[in-house]
Amino acid sequence: MRYEEFTIEGRNAVLEAFRGGKTIDKLFILDGCHDGPVNSILREAKKRDTVVSYVSKERLDNMSKTGKHQGVIAFAAAYEYASVEQILDAAREKNEPPFIFILDNIEDPHNLGAIIRTANLAGAHGVIIPKRRAAGLTATVARTSAGALNYTPVAKVTNISSAIEELKREGLWFVCADMGGEVMYNLDLKGPIGLVIGNEGEGVSRLVREKCDFTASIPMKGNIDSLNASVAAGVLAYEIVRQRMTG
Amino acid sequence: MRYEEFTIEGRNAVLEAFRGGKTIDKLFILDGCHDGPVNSILREAKKRDTVVSYVSKERLDNMSKTGKHQGVIAFAAAYEYASVEQILDAAREKNEPPFIFILDNIEDPHNLGAIIRTANLAGAHGVIIPKRRAAGLTATVARTSAGALNYTPVAKVTNISSAIEELKREGLWFVCADMGGEVMYNLDLKGPIGLVIGNEGEGVSRLVREKCDFTASIPMKGNIDSLNASVAAGVLAYEIVRQRMTG
Repeated sequence: MRYEEFTIEGRNAVLEAFRGGKTIDKLFILDGCHDGPVNSILREAKKRDTVVSYVSKERLDNMSKTGKHQGVIAFAAAYEYASVEQILDAAREKNEPPFIFILDNIEDPHNLGAIIRTANLAGAHGVIIPKRRAAGLTATVARTSAGALNYTPVAKVTNISSAIEELKREGLWFVCADMGGEVMYNLDLKGPIGLVIGNEGEGVSRLVREKCDFTASIPMKGNIDSLNASVAAGVLAYEIVRQRMTG
Repeated sequence: MRYEEFTIEGRNAVLEAFRGGKTIDKLFILDGCHDGPVNSILREAKKRDTVVSYVSKERLDNMSKTGKHQGVIAFAAAYEYASVEQILDAAREKNEPPFIFILDNIEDPHNLGAIIRTANLAGAHGVIIPKRRAAGLTATVARTSAGALNYTPVAKVTNISSAIEELKREGLWFVCADMGGEVMYNLDLKGPIGLVIGNEGEGVSRLVREKCDFTASIPMKGNIDSLNASVAAGVLAYEIVRQRMTG
């Protein structure tokens, strides 16, 4: 696999990583630390919209592998995130109507990996995840994706609702998975489509749901509330596959 | 949840547990230990077809919580396994054609939990798992089943092939998930059905596959080999649900 995750520790190393164009997934700064070098790092982080967490010295010491973090630790990914445009390009190259997964805050890396795996096999052209709160492309995600991360582009966006708005201008329709929606078998899920999968506990957030054209529900015949998020994504994705194949 | 897992340590405690009718998932015996009390325990284990592992003293010491295992540790489940007959009864009570999941050696407890969760929501009447090699109903399975273990009966059988033979006499058809089979959308999956899901790495074993009436494949449009086992189970189960709903 092409993917590798690593931590970068210390002020100079982290600043160089930013300036060298590395993808920094997360930046941890010692709480209350605001001197010159740290401010330079924060400026770079702001430019790239990197998520910054202010943490205690104990937390940094625990995360540190070298013991020399100087109040700054970055999580970098050797895997490069794609842009939304690259995902659309992938659909154009295959001469297929775009089929994109939008993950509204999947938090469990095992679920994220399994969903990227499903996206690859269902023939989706890419996966869009949010920058904040959600799981990023960690080593666990790479492993549970069973190699799919090497083929299926994943884009990270600041705001899922805005990304949906932009993709609508490209002609995509959006369907989100939620209870109380129309049973998925009764919806027309052909054409250029974005499949929106919600958070494990809370489902799709209200703002994102309001951007969607349809709400699709999976028939629930049992006693409990909901399917595992990656199973639900698979069931809905394959209803789209079925409609595309038989249409 | 009604489920709780616990370990029982020491010769008398384990023997009493067997004689009291507790469900023992696994029995660990100090390798080379064959005195009278241990032989009594082994006789009880044999009567109930409990899986016995002979392990080193170090392994037992690590597993022990009391430090007084006397060469014998049992894993017991407060959850009671159902019988295959009880699963068929559940279908009869609902006046539905039986729909049963048969898991041919699912090893990952997270997958097992997610599959039981799916079985519940897809309206299956029960899940059959093998006694050996596979994951049993551990606390992790109970947790990842999200409560489904309290509603969906799970039966443990010595031999999956024999269980399939018996269920065929009850009128069930069997479909297994495997690559190279007929695309699932083209198969008639209505009526009394057993859905056979294979092991995470090896798929459905040859002997079990030969007992199945159909092999169904999920269309694979990507670059990698296979879906996560619990996702594949969900996709196939919901193709059965769709056909039952629209039939």
